Amino acid sequence: MDASFNTETFCQTEKTRGKEIMSSVPGKTKKFSSFSSWFDDLVMEAKILDARYPVKGFIVYRENGFRAIKNIERIMEDLLHETGHEAVNFPDVISEDMFAKEAEHIKGFTTEVFWIERGGGSRLERRLILRPTSETAMYPMFPYWIRSHADLPFKIHQSVPVYRYETKATRPLLRLREFLWNEGHTAHATAEDAERQVKEGVDIYQHVYNEACLSYILLKRPDFDKFPGAEYSLAFDTWNPDGKVNQIGTVHNLGTNFAKVFNIMFEDKDGARRHVHQTCYGAGYTRILAAIIAQHGDDHGCVFPPAIAPIQVIVIPIVFKEKEQDIIDHAKNVYESIRPSFRAAIDEREDITPGEKFYYWEKMGVPIRVEVGPKEMESGILTVVRRDTLERHSVQQDQILERIQITLDRIKENLKVQSAEKMKESIADARSKKQVATLLAKRKIARIQWCGSQACAEDLTQEVAGEIRGTRADIEETPEDGCLVCGGEAKAVAYVARAY
Amino acid sequence: MDASFNTETFCQTEKTRGKEIMSSVPGKTKKFSSFSSWFDDLVMEAKILDARYPVKGFIVYRENGFRAIKNIERIMEDLLHETGHEAVNFPDVISEDMFAKEAEHIKGFTTEVFWIERGGGSRLERRLILRPTSETAMYPMFPYWIRSHADLPFKIHQSVPVYRYETKATRPLLRLREFLWNEGHTAHATAEDAERQVKEGVDIYQHVYNEACLSYILLKRPDFDKFPGAEYSLAFDTWNPDGKVNQIGTVHNLGTNFAKVFNIMFEDKDGARRHVHQTCYGAGYTRILAAIIAQHGDDHGCVFPPAIAPIQVIVIPIVFKEKEQDIIDHAKNVYESIRPSFRAAIDEREDITPGEKFYYWEKMGVPIRVEVGPKEMESGILTVVRRDTLERHSVQQDQILERIQITLDRIKENLKVQSAEKMKESIADARSKKQVATLLAKRKIARIQWCGSQACAEDLTQEVAGEIRGTRADIEETPEDGCLVCGGEAKAVAYVARAY
Repeated sequence: MDASFNTETFCQTEKTRGKEIMSSVPGKTKKFSSFSSWFDDLVMEAKILDARYPVKGFIVYRENGFRAIKNIERIMEDLLHETGHEAVNFPDVISEDMFAKEAEHIKGFTTEVFWIERGGGSRLERRLILRPTSETAMYPMFPYWIRSHADLPFKIHQSVPVYRYETKATRPLLRLREFLWNEGHTAHATAEDAERQVKEGVDIYQHVYNEACLSYILLKRPDFDKFPGAEYSLAFDTWNPDGKVNQIGTVHNLGTNFAKVFNIMFEDKDGARRHVHQTCYGAGYTRILAAIIAQHGDDHGCVFPPAIAPIQVIVIPIVFKEKEQDIIDHAKNVYESIRPSFRAAIDEREDITPGEKFYYWEKMGVPIRVEVGPKEMESGILTVVRRDTLERHSVQQDQILERIQITLDRIKENLKVQSAEKMKESIADARSKKQVATLLAKRKIARIQWCGSQACAEDLTQEVAGEIRGTRADIEETPEDGCLVCGGEAKAVAYVARAY
Repeated sequence: MDASFNTETFCQTEKTRGKEIMSSVPGKTKKFSSFSSWFDDLVMEAKILDARYPVKGFIVYRENGFRAIKNIERIMEDLLHETGHEAVNFPDVISEDMFAKEAEHIKGFTTEVFWIERGGGSRLERRLILRPTSETAMYPMFPYWIRSHADLPFKIHQSVPVYRYETKATRPLLRLREFLWNEGHTAHATAEDAERQVKEGVDIYQHVYNEACLSYILLKRPDFDKFPGAEYSLAFDTWNPDGKVNQIGTVHNLGTNFAKVFNIMFEDKDGARRHVHQTCYGAGYTRILAAIIAQHGDDHGCVFPPAIAPIQVIVIPIVFKEKEQDIIDHAKNVYESIRPSFRAAIDEREDITPGEKFYYWEKMGVPIRVEVGPKEMESGILTVVRRDTLERHSVQQDQILERIQITLDRIKENLKVQSAEKMKESIADARSKKQVATLLAKRKIARIQWCGSQACAEDLTQEVAGEIRGTRADIEETPEDGCLVCGGEAKAVAYVARAY
């Protein structure tokens, strides 16, 4: 008998591999030492996407990646529905004159839009752009729908692709020319209502990120880096193994800026006509998926959080050269008992070994593997393996559903704790530009004292390979010393990082 | 007391209105006598869409329309998943060189594609098109994924928008420059497998149309009108009140045509490398929604089939000028008891009367209305109103869930029967070009004897305002007399109609 196909031997190897991962020091695994190749290989091998699509910056989402996105989308859309957002769908294209109406907005996006100039054989009368975001698609329609205070609050959302002509090097999921996102847009009678809506937007995104087991810092972007046309912008930045932060969502208070440009007014209770106060928010499914893979993945492949996993439980019959039909039948029964309660699958392929199946489904990121072999047949006990720790447990067959649920809960908790620890480790104080540069080189985020001026921010960016991302919006931080750049009075504690 | 707000009086009016509809003769209602204005007004008023988007041929899907589409999509995608199709997502854009590879295909689509020629400030090296369909986006990737017979059958699908630069007059849902659809694409080892797959594609679509209560004829398109690059094309044509048929889905056998162009080969069991046999199929969510509104709607508004309805049951508290809190509370209890089993809502608006709410939710197409008023409070009996017939029934409160289910089933059955009768009525035999012209003028589909030649088809189109749509693929029909055009031997029974 070939020892490499012996279950016991294989499982021992498994255990050892598990230990290796658990004791691995960041920087020692491929994920940390050579993120780019680790990530690019993994997303291809785990059927997340195919980056070989013959147009630069565009990818194909394959079954494992797209199902994960659909799960993220469902969590997001259910929350939006529960909080009174209506699902709508706007066109992919915006005409040049619509797009040009808000001056700051077009200035912010004009260098990165795709232009459609022809239809069939003829030149279009009005050029069209592919939406980079949908404010200028949506807001011309708002005056048709919003007339009186009874129409407010007005809350809509859509899950759609958006397009940005990135001139920097593109990277699968992290920087693309087409990405998938959800965008919410709201209108309110008062500034206070809009302010409350910003908080609701933040809450919704926090709930989604929690299901994805992601940690992040919530930053108020500097005024010179806010969304073009907004009063202020909040953004969720999360850590990435290569030290570049990944922006996974933004929430903007638009004040009455767009309302004035697009003439969005309502008749108030007192009979006066007033401009609405608006908010908008966007979260990239593409970027969230990138963060999930980058934060939770390991050198064996993807590790999906239970709520996002396309398949939560994979059942593997441990059968070798000769067909052992009774084991296969038993495995099928186990699978059928799990299927009504969890997203489950059974791997009945005959041309590959159980060991190859283990590796395959680890790579795919399935949270739980259930092994059914001769030992399990005899004892009425099943072997359950956790993807995150690769720990093995024996479970009484009649307790399998309960134990799967407990294990999924533990995986969720463990992924959250690990990600949060890494987020905490990623941030360190810097007292000089040199310290900032050193921290960034170590793939960290630098926390600095800042006078708040754009000049100092630009000065810093000139000298270190990073930028001021903003000030904390999730916790209070009081500045202590002088500005790290000019030495003047520090007005804020700011975070400096390289970013995607 | 204002009599017009008296429940009894109102309900009598309701009954009368119900009778009017049931006895209405096609051609006498606005839907048949002036379809265009009826349809255009209805889709706007029922919050299906907004046609005022400032780019010609593009519309905004509003809450009532988009939720219906999401329900159609879910039915479609569940079936595709069950039959082994993996959900994927391909880019919206295709490069000119990819698009140009299949000669027939580009010839068929080139006059109707949108061209992207610039990104930011610079001219693109390779021009891009917005996909009119995805064969040339997908098939260049297939050789990466299909290597051996073990990779077959290969089945994927996606729900996405597609773009066609229509030069004819556009119409909401029926002819647009952007529409939403699902497209399935498969590859197989043998011609027989592909042939079986065509049948599976047809089955899936038939199931979806059945849930939408639509009737149709399944036609094999004439060879000169098949999908560019296909061996043959099947198409589902359905009736529309203005007599123009609405194509709600197509299924194509591509043979090895695209496989040869895109070099899609597999190693067979005998070691030989062979081209795959392919099929593809597409069903427009936009067109299906158009058919639902056009076929089932009446002069009161939309009538949604139960499986598609965004809201299946609307609960309306019958309260008038003074607030009657006990009735509102009772209505809320009724709503809460219905909500776990059906897509339900309660209309608690205070600024409009119950009568206005009745009209509003009839217009929106909600299949069942439950009225809760003082009479219902006292008797423990609820009033249930069917949207399709406007019939009223009294239902014991403890039987409400059961009765809602029975009523939804009856509505489904009734809508199917009505649509099928209309489909049957729409078809009539013609023995001369003049008879064809007369039938088309009467908004019917003409059934003719045809020699099968393109010359006769073109001759006919020159003289009557319609075209040969094809021969039946769902039933056998044997030609009897000479060709209606040339008098030669008839080889087929063909269907002539005007079409969207």
